[in-house]
Amino acid sequence: MNTEITRLREKRRSDRAELDALLDDVHVGHFAIVRDGTPVVFPTAVVRDGDRVLTHGSTGSPWLRALAAGASTSLAVTAMDGIVIARSAFESSIHYRSAVLFGSCYQLAGAEKLRAMDLITDALIPGRVAELRPHTDKEIAATQVLALPIETWSLKVSDGWPEDPPEDVAGDAWAGVVPIAPRYGYPRPAPDLRDGIAVPASVAALR
Amino acid sequence: MNTEITRLREKRRSDRAELDALLDDVHVGHFAIVRDGTPVVFPTAVVRDGDRVLTHGSTGSPWLRALAAGASTSLAVTAMDGIVIARSAFESSIHYRSAVLFGSCYQLAGAEKLRAMDLITDALIPGRVAELRPHTDKEIAATQVLALPIETWSLKVSDGWPEDPPEDVAGDAWAGVVPIAPRYGYPRPAPDLRDGIAVPASVAALR
Repeated sequence: MNTEITRLREKRRSDRAELDALLDDVHVGHFAIVRDGTPVVFPTAVVRDGDRVLTHGSTGSPWLRALAAGASTSLAVTAMDGIVIARSAFESSIHYRSAVLFGSCYQLAGAEKLRAMDLITDALIPGRVAELRPHTDKEIAATQVLALPIETWSLKVSDGWPEDPPEDVAGDAWAGVVPIAPRYGYPRPAPDLRDGIAVPASVAALR
Repeated sequence: MNTEITRLREKRRSDRAELDALLDDVHVGHFAIVRDGTPVVFPTAVVRDGDRVLTHGSTGSPWLRALAAGASTSLAVTAMDGIVIARSAFESSIHYRSAVLFGSCYQLAGAEKLRAMDLITDALIPGRVAELRPHTDKEIAATQVLALPIETWSLKVSDGWPEDPPEDVAGDAWAGVVPIAPRYGYPRPAPDLRDGIAVPASVAALR
């Protein structure tokens, strides 16, 4: 179900492929829950796995535990893709892609949990899992992995040109779009990195 | 008041200057409110103005109207500054700065509202206000501007090196950090831009 957007209807998208593209591009998510009657929002890494969104963290995290217990939640995933420079402040805006999902999470266990942990690592650092030692039992036990089904969601995309009225277009102001994209810098080796260990393929490929 | 963080205490920061630096760097915020008993999270542009955070939008926006009516809210502002590449998946993580504010918004009016509208434009496109025509009365009337006081907040910062145990440091895996930063691309002129209008100083300076 694709929930209704009451404003800016022209920016609503119902294409699941567009939702998936956003979720595969952006790995920062913001979960909201209600705690003691008050809304609380938490940022966390999120990774799509088919028809669900995975998140993970410490078994000691109170808000992950609240989600694991089935708390009603809302998850926003947002990309800021550019600045729309119009001929007035009023028409100036942002290029964005914004998904909001609603529902409840469930907890993963066993082989499914292990697979999800690897999927999260490889989403953030593609190819890294194959370069690393396996998880220890202690590490697995200290991690909880949750999934939010992709069922109830809305997607808004702003990717157009400025929409100035004719009297502004006739004026002298410039108009256009300045794109913004995240950029990876050069890998910086840890101070305790032993000599002779080269940057691995997964890390080199991030750039 | 700086609210308590129950996990990752070592990452908690109580320095208001660090909070301000984050709010001045990142202009995407996520507000959570409770609607019909359910948490809902909304992305929007946010700009710090001294001891408050400003946001704005259409007077027709239902969720801005709920905030303007004093709904209890939580605002998260998050920067993803890099990937921490550890020698295990477990210790791999993200460099981030994450602020969460709590409280209620109030609506701005009159000269204060006008000043806030300009401040928001100049935060996103520094110097742009001086290049533009003034707002029309109709534009001002169609815009609502809200402020959330910076009173109750928490800030978490992850900016350290991987913390691998000695047995992993002794192994062959690489470790370090790959920084991430947003990067502005080249300005793209609007299709209806009239000939002979050069990219203005404010837009050129974004890069």
